[in-house]
Amino acid sequence: MNYLSINDIDSLPDWVNEAIEIKKNPLQYKSLGANKTIGLLFFNSSLRTRLSTQKAALNLGLTPIVMNFSNEGWALEFEDGTVMDQGKSEHVKEAAQVISQYCDIIAIRAFALLKDKKKDLSEEVLKNFTKYATVPIVNMESSVGHPLQALADAITLAEFNSKKAPKIVLSWAPHPKALPHAVANSFVQMMQLQNAEFVITHPKGYELDPEITKNTPITYNQEEAFKNADFIYAKNWSSFSDYGKVLHQDKNWMIDQKKMELTNNAKFMHCLPVRRNVIVSDEVLNGENSLVIEQANNRTYAAQLVLKRILEKGKK
Amino acid sequence: MNYLSINDIDSLPDWVNEAIEIKKNPLQYKSLGANKTIGLLFFNSSLRTRLSTQKAALNLGLTPIVMNFSNEGWALEFEDGTVMDQGKSEHVKEAAQVISQYCDIIAIRAFALLKDKKKDLSEEVLKNFTKYATVPIVNMESSVGHPLQALADAITLAEFNSKKAPKIVLSWAPHPKALPHAVANSFVQMMQLQNAEFVITHPKGYELDPEITKNTPITYNQEEAFKNADFIYAKNWSSFSDYGKVLHQDKNWMIDQKKMELTNNAKFMHCLPVRRNVIVSDEVLNGENSLVIEQANNRTYAAQLVLKRILEKGKK
Amino acid sequence: MNYLSINDIDSLPDWVNEAIEIKKNPLQYKSLGANKTIGLLFFNSSLRTRLSTQKAALNLGLTPIVMNFSNEGWALEFEDGTVMDQGKSEHVKEAAQVISQYCDIIAIRAFALLKDKKKDLSEEVLKNFTKYATVPIVNMESSVGHPLQALADAITLAEFNSKKAPKIVLSWAPHPKALPHAVANSFVQMMQLQNAEFVITHPKGYELDPEITKNTPITYNQEEAFKNADFIYAKNWSSFSDYGKVLHQDKNWMIDQKKMELTNNAKFMHCLPVRRNVIVSDEVLNGENSLVIEQANNRTYAAQLVLKRILEKGKK
Repeated sequence: MNYLSINDIDSLPDWVNEAIEIKKNPLQYKSLGANKTIGLLFFNSSLRTRLSTQKAALNLGLTPIVMNFSNEGWALEFEDGTVMDQGKSEHVKEAAQVISQYCDIIAIRAFALLKDKKKDLSEEVLKNFTKYATVPIVNMESSVGHPLQALADAITLAEFNSKKAPKIVLSWAPHPKALPHAVANSFVQMMQLQNAEFVITHPKGYELDPEITKNTPITYNQEEAFKNADFIYAKNWSSFSDYGKVLHQDKNWMIDQKKMELTNNAKFMHCLPVRRNVIVSDEVLNGENSLVIEQANNRTYAAQLVLKRILEKGKK
Repeated sequence: MNYLSINDIDSLPDWVNEAIEIKKNPLQYKSLGANKTIGLLFFNSSLRTRLSTQKAALNLGLTPIVMNFSNEGWALEFEDGTVMDQGKSEHVKEAAQVISQYCDIIAIRAFALLKDKKKDLSEEVLKNFTKYATVPIVNMESSVGHPLQALADAITLAEFNSKKAPKIVLSWAPHPKALPHAVANSFVQMMQLQNAEFVITHPKGYELDPEITKNTPITYNQEEAFKNADFIYAKNWSSFSDYGKVLHQDKNWMIDQKKMELTNNAKFMHCLPVRRNVIVSDEVLNGENSLVIEQANNRTYAAQLVLKRILEKGKK
Repeated sequence: MNYLSINDIDSLPDWVNEAIEIKKNPLQYKSLGANKTIGLLFFNSSLRTRLSTQKAALNLGLTPIVMNFSNEGWALEFEDGTVMDQGKSEHVKEAAQVISQYCDIIAIRAFALLKDKKKDLSEEVLKNFTKYATVPIVNMESSVGHPLQALADAITLAEFNSKKAPKIVLSWAPHPKALPHAVANSFVQMMQLQNAEFVITHPKGYELDPEITKNTPITYNQEEAFKNADFIYAKNWSSFSDYGKVLHQDKNWMIDQKKMELTNNAKFMHCLPVRRNVIVSDEVLNGENSLVIEQANNRTYAAQLVLKRILEKGKK
């Protein structure tokens, strides 16, 4: 069993319920990972993912081995059939097979580089590790998705939602740098498995990949979208059509108290790290309706659920 | 309970005695940290602190999770109310709250930058983590103090002192680069809790913060200070009044055998790393009166005592 | 007991047999390393060594503490008697003694810099740590040797060889960058302990250190060497006589299927990382006679055997 995307969740309600069970007593499966290791391979920076995945592993008795590929290992080649006479020292074919011999599970973080759309869409790093590894692979954010984040978000929604079909808004918000689409993509995919009135709002030109958004309603009018919302999920991303570009700063898209007042006393969500007073005002982020800290907390239980399921499958 | 400075020690004699008890049988509290984690956050280089704190945690059954903030995480913002549209990706408010959910204790190393006296004196990194974290904080050297080092020094003094009130000299020594005041500060504060004839000696212009030295005798005459001394503690620091400056090289302040002969067969102490033949001559450092290796050894037991007390408080 | 070079192996057949026993049940000595730590000190990049040595330690119940000296610690001085007023902050004398107090075993990776032959031949980092440390030292690749790799290779040879005295060829292969001699050196030394017809082949000018090759047959004719070979061990190295130079690219020395057909259906070996279609063609590396993945697997058992023997000696 791999956990590469939201598509690997067979039943979201079951997963969420089980994660909430784990959260009540995180050490109940402590023997499951005994004498096993998980390799956490980082090609990019990480705080929540780095620490929560280690914590989740430890709760399962699984030993985490962290490796920062960017400065601790060798530059990897991903193309097939190349003459490797340039900067890359090792091919993913060997790296993935070899690491599979030392680690019982491999988790990988490799962001979109936002230079080459086709390459990013291919999830080169994640997919090649998956292809050549002989052990389960966990996506700790790839160029296309961040399904551990989306699973933590689903847990958080379940904990704070009291409606049958709440109105949930994914709102683009401004950011000075070009950011990947992974978090937004996985959130959208996760929402498609939820009973909810789900709306995406962003300025023109920031449409996400239509193969992911499918028929999700999209509006360019943020205030319209916020009306009656029960949850506001903020996130920046760069343009998908004009790939990887920051089209304009759109400071008026920042989420502040005034906009939140348009909602049905909505909860505020963000995956973190968040730029204060750029994405969201201090007032909203510090407010009692902000769920961002609990979302981060649920990263542990999302990871623990995924690792538990992988370890259990491995036993069969 | 936090361990931020020497002021967090309620009774130095009790702490030293307990640390010496722990040293005799370091594994006697092995169950205390079971299923708990300590996050070691490094904003700067570290050898002794990095390894001894991990060793101390392991002796207590506590799992260390190391994170180098400088290259593994996100650049942190510490100012309140800023518009975060520049280089900083995450505010300490979120970082501290989030890490508190994965780690039962957070230990932090963040040196003085020696650019902005007021900012350094505020211990921006340490104090903000303390403010926003929901778990105990341990200072692994802040811009102002290094209380784990001073506690290890107190243990070492207790082990090697046989007098009621030994003469102990903190001597400035030359160094090519501008160094922080943290080690000297905490040593001075720790000495103020000791029965001792304590003297500081340094060239004019290298006065430490008077709010720390208080009424400790200071002399500009190193040879005078060394007379009859039982312990010489060497350390370089940059100017405090002309903040962060190296005023002159003062090579004649290096501690050599000739100077040590002025003492009462004094023991030599230094926190390490030490530049040989700049701070101290090979002869003195290699000599049988040098305690530097034992000081480093006691870093484990100082850290273990602090972590033990924190874990015990946590149980109440 | 240290493991610095192949010379520390008292009986290669015994070691290989014991490693193969360990491989059958890697957890049978799980209690041996309880409450002990191994410090893994990296002065250079590492994937296999980094992960397999951690896995080996964990299998023995020994806790690995990883430290990247290049960016986490202090720049070390290795010369005796220097005035340390330049870039180096700490002398190996202190570093080695201090780390010995936190770690029960110290393992070190420090590559040849290929600038100063005499300094590289002195194994400055490894030998100085060995001199000043008070605990056993393990070589995770020094400027001169890589005995953990050679031990893994010996295990792999034992597993795949069925002849009394197989023909084994160490073949130089091209590479764009100047590489150290460590892997080739240790392989040659290990081969000198084997029953085998051992031949080295390389272009003129790439002679290894004659003090290591001794009377091993060397031929400049790669095709001649390959005839009837049972094992081809490929590796690049820079010139030893014209120290650290890449003399020419010699692309015709790449190992491809056509050359492998000259052999006695030989197995192909390489220590990895390997540059595809530079050192060896895709066809050979992907082929069923390639042992490179199993060599990497055996790194765990080579390290585990060495650590087991060290831990057992430590008990006496």
